[in-house]
Amino acid sequence: MVVVMDGQTSDADVKKLADKLESLGFDIQVIRGESRIVLAIIGDTKDLDSFPFYAYTGVKEVLQVAKPYKLASREFKDTNTIIRRKGVVIGGKELIVMAGPCAVESEEQIFKIAHKISELGIKVLRGGAFKPRTSPYSFQGLGLEGLKLMARAGKEYGLLVITEVMSIEQIDVIAEYADIFQIGARNMQNFMLLKELGRIKKPVMLKRGVSATLEELLLSAEYILSQGNNEVMLCERGIRTFENYTRNTLDLSAVPSLKELSHLPVIVDPSHSTGRWRLVGPMAKSAIAAGADGILIEVHPNPKVSLSDGAQALKLKNFCKLMMELNAVAHAVDREINLTGNVD
Amino acid sequence: MVVVMDGQTSDADVKKLADKLESLGFDIQVIRGESRIVLAIIGDTKDLDSFPFYAYTGVKEVLQVAKPYKLASREFKDTNTIIRRKGVVIGGKELIVMAGPCAVESEEQIFKIAHKISELGIKVLRGGAFKPRTSPYSFQGLGLEGLKLMARAGKEYGLLVITEVMSIEQIDVIAEYADIFQIGARNMQNFMLLKELGRIKKPVMLKRGVSATLEELLLSAEYILSQGNNEVMLCERGIRTFENYTRNTLDLSAVPSLKELSHLPVIVDPSHSTGRWRLVGPMAKSAIAAGADGILIEVHPNPKVSLSDGAQALKLKNFCKLMMELNAVAHAVDREINLTGNVD
Amino acid sequence: MVVVMDGQTSDADVKKLADKLESLGFDIQVIRGESRIVLAIIGDTKDLDSFPFYAYTGVKEVLQVAKPYKLASREFKDTNTIIRRKGVVIGGKELIVMAGPCAVESEEQIFKIAHKISELGIKVLRGGAFKPRTSPYSFQGLGLEGLKLMARAGKEYGLLVITEVMSIEQIDVIAEYADIFQIGARNMQNFMLLKELGRIKKPVMLKRGVSATLEELLLSAEYILSQGNNEVMLCERGIRTFENYTRNTLDLSAVPSLKELSHLPVIVDPSHSTGRWRLVGPMAKSAIAAGADGILIEVHPNPKVSLSDGAQALKLKNFCKLMMELNAVAHAVDREINLTGNVD
Amino acid sequence: MVVVMDGQTSDADVKKLADKLESLGFDIQVIRGESRIVLAIIGDTKDLDSFPFYAYTGVKEVLQVAKPYKLASREFKDTNTIIRRKGVVIGGKELIVMAGPCAVESEEQIFKIAHKISELGIKVLRGGAFKPRTSPYSFQGLGLEGLKLMARAGKEYGLLVITEVMSIEQIDVIAEYADIFQIGARNMQNFMLLKELGRIKKPVMLKRGVSATLEELLLSAEYILSQGNNEVMLCERGIRTFENYTRNTLDLSAVPSLKELSHLPVIVDPSHSTGRWRLVGPMAKSAIAAGADGILIEVHPNPKVSLSDGAQALKLKNFCKLMMELNAVAHAVDREINLTGNVD
Repeated sequence: MVVVMDGQTSDADVKKLADKLESLGFDIQVIRGESRIVLAIIGDTKDLDSFPFYAYTGVKEVLQVAKPYKLASREFKDTNTIIRRKGVVIGGKELIVMAGPCAVESEEQIFKIAHKISELGIKVLRGGAFKPRTSPYSFQGLGLEGLKLMARAGKEYGLLVITEVMSIEQIDVIAEYADIFQIGARNMQNFMLLKELGRIKKPVMLKRGVSATLEELLLSAEYILSQGNNEVMLCERGIRTFENYTRNTLDLSAVPSLKELSHLPVIVDPSHSTGRWRLVGPMAKSAIAAGADGILIEVHPNPKVSLSDGAQALKLKNFCKLMMELNAVAHAVDREINLTGNVD
Repeated sequence: MVVVMDGQTSDADVKKLADKLESLGFDIQVIRGESRIVLAIIGDTKDLDSFPFYAYTGVKEVLQVAKPYKLASREFKDTNTIIRRKGVVIGGKELIVMAGPCAVESEEQIFKIAHKISELGIKVLRGGAFKPRTSPYSFQGLGLEGLKLMARAGKEYGLLVITEVMSIEQIDVIAEYADIFQIGARNMQNFMLLKELGRIKKPVMLKRGVSATLEELLLSAEYILSQGNNEVMLCERGIRTFENYTRNTLDLSAVPSLKELSHLPVIVDPSHSTGRWRLVGPMAKSAIAAGADGILIEVHPNPKVSLSDGAQALKLKNFCKLMMELNAVAHAVDREINLTGNVD
Repeated sequence: MVVVMDGQTSDADVKKLADKLESLGFDIQVIRGESRIVLAIIGDTKDLDSFPFYAYTGVKEVLQVAKPYKLASREFKDTNTIIRRKGVVIGGKELIVMAGPCAVESEEQIFKIAHKISELGIKVLRGGAFKPRTSPYSFQGLGLEGLKLMARAGKEYGLLVITEVMSIEQIDVIAEYADIFQIGARNMQNFMLLKELGRIKKPVMLKRGVSATLEELLLSAEYILSQGNNEVMLCERGIRTFENYTRNTLDLSAVPSLKELSHLPVIVDPSHSTGRWRLVGPMAKSAIAAGADGILIEVHPNPKVSLSDGAQALKLKNFCKLMMELNAVAHAVDREINLTGNVD
Repeated sequence: MVVVMDGQTSDADVKKLADKLESLGFDIQVIRGESRIVLAIIGDTKDLDSFPFYAYTGVKEVLQVAKPYKLASREFKDTNTIIRRKGVVIGGKELIVMAGPCAVESEEQIFKIAHKISELGIKVLRGGAFKPRTSPYSFQGLGLEGLKLMARAGKEYGLLVITEVMSIEQIDVIAEYADIFQIGARNMQNFMLLKELGRIKKPVMLKRGVSATLEELLLSAEYILSQGNNEVMLCERGIRTFENYTRNTLDLSAVPSLKELSHLPVIVDPSHSTGRWRLVGPMAKSAIAAGADGILIEVHPNPKVSLSDGAQALKLKNFCKLMMELNAVAHAVDREINLTGNVD
């Protein structure tokens, strides 16, 4: 950590800060430049996160040198994290596709989707049972009933099930019916929830908050990892900018950046970020070319009657066609999607 | 609600959408312009929030005409909401000041602050017992112990107590010791928590998320209001932008905008948003000039030993001086802070 | 165009606005809903861009229905614009790669790059002669000398030359030495410059401003098109967000969005947006998978001695390797880069 | 300047970078921490702005310690810059108000405004002659004719005249008719224009670009100052965020921040930033409470017939009323507006 002080700061004031830091067990080097005095602080400065530097006379700026997270970092663990679950591998050469409706709406709907995607070789069924909605007047999901339907569909067609958890109370029941927990963007900094999910033995996919930095995303992952759960995936799903043609701005440079900074698998959600189904295909291809380990895609047998986010859902036929196209891009970057079926 | 369709859309495709909407009980007017066809949908379109417009052929854009929230709107309730608690009035001509440390650290600390601010005539003591921290390695607050200390200090000096609630589990214990619940920016869209707080009988101060629009803030307030709790205050605490000299960008135009859109009291937090104590004074004055109903300020007897956010806390002496200055600005905009003490 | 008025607005006030608009030649339809009154304005509402709607009593919101640009729109011209220059085709099935240094630094440097890229089959040489720099103390380019060097290198190796124009005064001299004009992000709304470039007979590549919406980018293109120059390319080069791991956030959903909205070719610059050479490769592949018509890449024989933006430049060897990889992605999305050389 | 290298970097690689920097005349101190190696570079590091640090093996991050601007900084000049022109003082205890229409539309309009504001004691007339407009189809101003009208009105009523310059070609003619040059947000980084304005002998008001950081604003001011023109004012006019209730987000914390960082006067434009006339009053008061040295306000005798931005213009009567209110706030923060007239 580096603390920048005004060049005019008195020796006594510099000493006051340096002494305090030394008393906390850090080594301090003072470097005097032309217009600035720099204090280099040596040691595990994560503990200084709350230190009130700016309350000291002369302090102009505090610069982080070491990363504030540890377990999530590539430096801590050099090799990619691979998550295995019932024969499905996430984070390896094979790309993972998680497909399904925004919200589970009926037995017919979820079984139809599960059937179709399993025929194609897709291995994970996504779907919302508890839905976080901006408006209290929007459809909030089928709840436990939806969860059970999804579990039955997953079992019938041999698919892993991923669904969103919105509060600590829901953890037990979701653990009973689903294979992977999803933390939505709005809960990325729901620290109580993160800690609890750190204590369970199931994989967690953590979505980036709409205005979270990559560092904050990794710090939220650290909350889970630090409680003992190593099976964490990161998910880029779009950030909020001034542009409003798309619902959010998919930040695909986050993909190679996260791969540089961390060993955790990176998944991309092109459906929520764009909010327009016509953009889902191009952005899914783009995500794979950028190096994503998987994608999360909304499909619906009939988007026009969808109760939630139909605007961005692909019809099953379009989804099948897209999978073929994605596989071509995957091969071009030395990855693959193991499709077992064909489009008819 | 207005749906814009491509001017080339076939009559059959326009009819398909219009018929569907009519079957849901809405009146539809179709207006044909030069390059666009516009469908005006008449009725309570809040229910169409999840309707998959973009899945229909020809739909280019969907424009909201009515506001998606109701109970929080100025149209629903024309007069300002006033919150009364133990003789303290929030939302009236008198401005409310909520002061205290970022985190409760010790009995000595919180009693010293409570004593000093009560002498000055301040009526609400703020302080964190459960602290949401970006890093799992940062000080997370004293928890229940901190809460009890704050309650005792509040009682001793006749101050209302406001503190942050981070999860549903904490509601009961906080209700026992505090007078006002604070929902932090990171939990603004923790909808499960909002709903539960809608069922209690204590005031709630809802902080705007760092990238939330005013509409989303009001929709989150609607979650609370719709469960029966009418005592909601809104709090502007800075939004995230590209500017990094300040921690966040305090959006003061949110103050008159929220007063236009809603009847709820508006509080401003100039401490967290700036992250630099030298900016707290100017921004507090600025907030009052913009029309805020109150401010939330961090004070600390000795910011240099603060365990949390000392950089932005005012010393007690500076705080007292600022209160006099704020009162002058308050009078200039026909408001007042009823100070009973003086700076010495 | 749709004007939303408060439901309580008096008939007289609604009539005042409607009459005014009718006097300007528009047809008006008034639709009365529950809490809102909507005026649909029919006609060429581009002329109402400056109309002071909010000055009329009762007006709550003004919603654009038609796009404010015309010549740049896909509706005006359905087929993709193809730009041809000395046998080079931009906007067709073949992808265009524009490669070169951030700034021309010496004869040796630019000739070495031109030689190498021409061997590989690249057709356009990029390079800065006049450099816009945030700080007045940074290297500002070689100016005319750099321009002449680039022109000679381009001629020697049969490459088109693209370079940035910063002011009206530079147009004539750049027209003499270069084939394509580049307008940098900072000048995207330098309207005087745009108009002048609309009067020349050379292609213009217009970079998106760091906080410009797609609509604003297309309106800036409209300035050029409306003066008679149809050979305009759009360039996505990253927008400014709160994320600071990358210099800017490359908005790749802009690519399929712009292709939907407009007929103009879309180029992506992965070098400036990321600011880190390690991210250039993944983002270049990602851009092509998203549907870009070309990319702009910084290469330098020895980035360590580069006078400008060396951090993001690829070494020639890495560049050659990347071209092979890009070609694989191009084929996967049914495009191609006609490489004639090999990596050795 | 501080360069952060990976803790695993070999001694040889560290030495390679250190030697290079020493050869450029800098002193280097190497500090080895647990997971990082830090190089502190001592000397005038402004010259290293273009140094390709990231091209060196092991470099993780480069942190600025000294500010990249000099002449604009508070450290270079401790006392506030005061600009004097024909008896008008900008940057002193008295606040400056610049009022007038968005665009000059007619002799009657501009004379009416000039008359009224001069009666009130306002000293500067603002108005656009050359208008930068996002759309080529919007009213672009009266040009030279508008400029002459404004100059005549200014002379008649003893007002300074400020108007926007959009290109180098316009400098001479504007210098003939106006007292102060305004650089609009879109031209904040039109460096050729900045340099030219640095060579003239008239004050320049530089507006912050919609996505410019404070540092970039000060670097643009540095372009002007470094050419010899010391009479520069900074203007906050709103930045672009995701919030769209207001046109832009007025960043009032920029006011005390700029006063901390620089000695130049700071003006605030509450009209353009909000885009809604009802918000202009509260934000003008707020700006003054934040410490602004002046404000820029749009007034129009009849906003409903305004050709440009009527939505945000105040009627003359409202303007007069607002001036009285502003004066009250000014007194509360120990400033004043010398009004000579009354509202009646």
